[in-house]
Amino acid sequence: MQMPHPSQDIISQRETLAAGLRQIVGSEWVISDEVERKPYQCDGITAYMAMPLLVVLPASTEEVRAVLRFCHERGVKVVPRGSGTSLSGGALPLEDGILLVTSRLCSVVEVDAPNRVARVQPGVPNIAISEAVSHLGLCYMPDPSSQLISTIGGNVAENAGGVHCLKYGVTADHILGLQLVLMTGELLQLGGAFLGASEGELDLMGVLTGSEGLLGVVTEIAVRLEPVPEVARVISMSFPSVEKACECVGAIIGVGVIPAGLEFMDRKVLDAVSVLIRERFDDRTEALLLCELDGTAVEVDALVHVVSDVARAQGAIELKVSTTEEERQRIWSSRKLAFSAIGKLCPDYYCTDGTIPRNKLPEVLNTMAELSEKYGLDYANCFHAGDGNLHPIIMYDAAKPGDLEKAEAFGADVLIACVNVGGVLSGEHGIGVEKRDLMTHQFTDVDLHQQQMLKCAFDPQELLNPGKVFPTACRCAEFGRMHVRGGALRFADIPRF
Amino acid sequence: MQMPHPSQDIISQRETLAAGLRQIVGSEWVISDEVERKPYQCDGITAYMAMPLLVVLPASTEEVRAVLRFCHERGVKVVPRGSGTSLSGGALPLEDGILLVTSRLCSVVEVDAPNRVARVQPGVPNIAISEAVSHLGLCYMPDPSSQLISTIGGNVAENAGGVHCLKYGVTADHILGLQLVLMTGELLQLGGAFLGASEGELDLMGVLTGSEGLLGVVTEIAVRLEPVPEVARVISMSFPSVEKACECVGAIIGVGVIPAGLEFMDRKVLDAVSVLIRERFDDRTEALLLCELDGTAVEVDALVHVVSDVARAQGAIELKVSTTEEERQRIWSSRKLAFSAIGKLCPDYYCTDGTIPRNKLPEVLNTMAELSEKYGLDYANCFHAGDGNLHPIIMYDAAKPGDLEKAEAFGADVLIACVNVGGVLSGEHGIGVEKRDLMTHQFTDVDLHQQQMLKCAFDPQELLNPGKVFPTACRCAEFGRMHVRGGALRFADIPRF
Repeated sequence: MQMPHPSQDIISQRETLAAGLRQIVGSEWVISDEVERKPYQCDGITAYMAMPLLVVLPASTEEVRAVLRFCHERGVKVVPRGSGTSLSGGALPLEDGILLVTSRLCSVVEVDAPNRVARVQPGVPNIAISEAVSHLGLCYMPDPSSQLISTIGGNVAENAGGVHCLKYGVTADHILGLQLVLMTGELLQLGGAFLGASEGELDLMGVLTGSEGLLGVVTEIAVRLEPVPEVARVISMSFPSVEKACECVGAIIGVGVIPAGLEFMDRKVLDAVSVLIRERFDDRTEALLLCELDGTAVEVDALVHVVSDVARAQGAIELKVSTTEEERQRIWSSRKLAFSAIGKLCPDYYCTDGTIPRNKLPEVLNTMAELSEKYGLDYANCFHAGDGNLHPIIMYDAAKPGDLEKAEAFGADVLIACVNVGGVLSGEHGIGVEKRDLMTHQFTDVDLHQQQMLKCAFDPQELLNPGKVFPTACRCAEFGRMHVRGGALRFADIPRF
Repeated sequence: MQMPHPSQDIISQRETLAAGLRQIVGSEWVISDEVERKPYQCDGITAYMAMPLLVVLPASTEEVRAVLRFCHERGVKVVPRGSGTSLSGGALPLEDGILLVTSRLCSVVEVDAPNRVARVQPGVPNIAISEAVSHLGLCYMPDPSSQLISTIGGNVAENAGGVHCLKYGVTADHILGLQLVLMTGELLQLGGAFLGASEGELDLMGVLTGSEGLLGVVTEIAVRLEPVPEVARVISMSFPSVEKACECVGAIIGVGVIPAGLEFMDRKVLDAVSVLIRERFDDRTEALLLCELDGTAVEVDALVHVVSDVARAQGAIELKVSTTEEERQRIWSSRKLAFSAIGKLCPDYYCTDGTIPRNKLPEVLNTMAELSEKYGLDYANCFHAGDGNLHPIIMYDAAKPGDLEKAEAFGADVLIACVNVGGVLSGEHGIGVEKRDLMTHQFTDVDLHQQQMLKCAFDPQELLNPGKVFPTACRCAEFGRMHVRGGALRFADIPRF
């Protein structure tokens, strides 16, 4: 993972820049001391680290505008960051760029229950939105595993998913409006605080969601609120083989049920988890599916019957259905503890994510077994099976020379296998720096060029989060020169990339 | 509604261009004869007309690529068109541009039931997708009123809605992948044929949906298929005033029910319709709501009770609930015949669309009554109340000098009223030429500039459907020159628009 060379000229101006930024946000909200900058040097992927030039914490949209205008005028790069839970290095700092942290923008500005919408600032943690509206019987649906910490701003930047996105959709499906500050400091209002607010315009809001901090800094988000489902029940289904479990995933969706969540855990995860939850899984079990069904009580009862019948027909060994909320929580605890449990099996692990068509699950899981042999590294599987979103957990020992590189190569080969069966490089973690150099496996030159042109249309100086997502710089300047020739009305001789 | 001056130079080359295009698509698929071009001179808004330079009907993606490359090399403008049902002039031809008609690209390429997706060509009528999968118990959910005729390609271009989009979402929520041809003839694959296929890339697919033919020509679409709901029932609810009906809309959503559809009809519409369906509405009724509920039988029964209780509490005069599919169809017939019924009341009518937050319905409906007096034109209301999508029907007489202009001004004032209460210029018809000159009422200069930069990133020569959506030309060339100065690394002196 190579980043562009930092500008020594900018680094030498650290104190001058800090002084200017302190005029904007107040002296205590610009961190220039090296020790105090240290906690910000990585996000959720600790394998990648860099010290930010400065850390700046604005408290209002106006301060964000002023900070960006200040940086734009001086050619200083900016990396936006929420809580830093990105699992693809999306918030990895730059040595010659400021880290713009949104944690002080943390108000729920307005809850509009009749219109089912809340306006929130980007630094609000995901879970805090649901907490703020739970007394109204409402909630914010997308639930990434990081939801206790990760911010809604970061969720928008990465188009975060979660267990429930199979039925309820990802972040993009729950955003009605965005207030956006461009790198120039200009303010845009995209969509608004009601359903249908983004009709009749080029869908800038859609393109912002999942754009990984490359296009602008979001300073307010209008999110959809939804009623908390009346009832949720979970079915735990054990299978004698990985293949049987995978086939059951397709069969459930195939009969017309879209579960609220449909999760897969292999034997290695179950063994690790059983120590923590003090419960043994049947010896014949090689894979377990957890299927959550929600809705009205009568509807859920009916769906439990349908799914149980399918699972039996697909060769399930054992079925457990929760009958109380307490049972439901207990069954889910195995899934929720999976990653900590694996953490106890090995010194380090590396988890990536790719998404494939559901019917390719057996094929890609077989490939993983082969890659494990090739690299001599153990792995486990625990993932969102319903939407084909894989999260292979590759175990290694960072203290062993070469082990991290092997784990990264293993992860990259899994992602390439995903692309080879028609899948994609990410499900919910984004590209960041982690998968940046794999983009050419998924996208043609024309695809990448068109995505980069879009980046240029927002940030022609490439000051916002450069070095992420795209394997090469965007060459906005060349794009510009091309246009000038176009302006001479001789269309035919315009060079194409 | 002013369009840019057509290029006489291009018009003079009509026969040469036709000859070249015949080499690509075959001689019978290029229409140059004036009489044969006539049927194509307008779309669903017959008030706007222009004769296309040529009509070209390619039969494959490769032919579309070759046609666009041919036009790009010669600087010839292109207007893409499906069945021409646009209600905002989105497919209005240009005298110096070819009309690229997709009706020969009309295959359902693949139905993948396990993954719940179909790949279809853009010329497939909306309804034909559901017909092709009905034997599997599946359907394509979005249902614009034009669904018997309008094509899926046109639906994507306009991000079409329909009665059921309140619960199920608009076109953008049902598209998983797009194959796109750029103006240069280059091919892009956006997203793919499974859920999650567009993760990990800048969301070009999102921005294409609803882009009104300004960014590229879509040649294949992967659409989501969904199970046909087990049961649907409709409740007809009459109210003594428009306000009471509007308040009931908010109250239904407020208790946590998202109906499959929630439609509003005023007394004028009911009077017109009652002649056709031979049924009288209670004299006290000033407004009627139709509320459709769908799902499993038990769920729907429960919801019918909830909604009926709300309606009674909100002062409904009379409730009718369908108990059979036949009754359901009969109750819906009043809504389905509404526009034809109004057509019998007046020589001509003009229907526009805007969307507002639900709680602003009474305010904007009052404004309409005032505008009706101001312009001396009658009007009626029949619209998607659940999502605040208004469709005022303004009655006029095209034979009366000045009447059309008055109707247009009335419609424009309604849309401005929508924007003034925080709403938007469109719900599902798009901007096209109809609402183009109103864009400055909704968007700031910064907003419009940023949307135009995005257009430039796809089509820097502005050859694709120019004159639509944006009130001014995009000035891509100026954008180019700006960039070259940026390339000199002097960021501070880059002029901003």
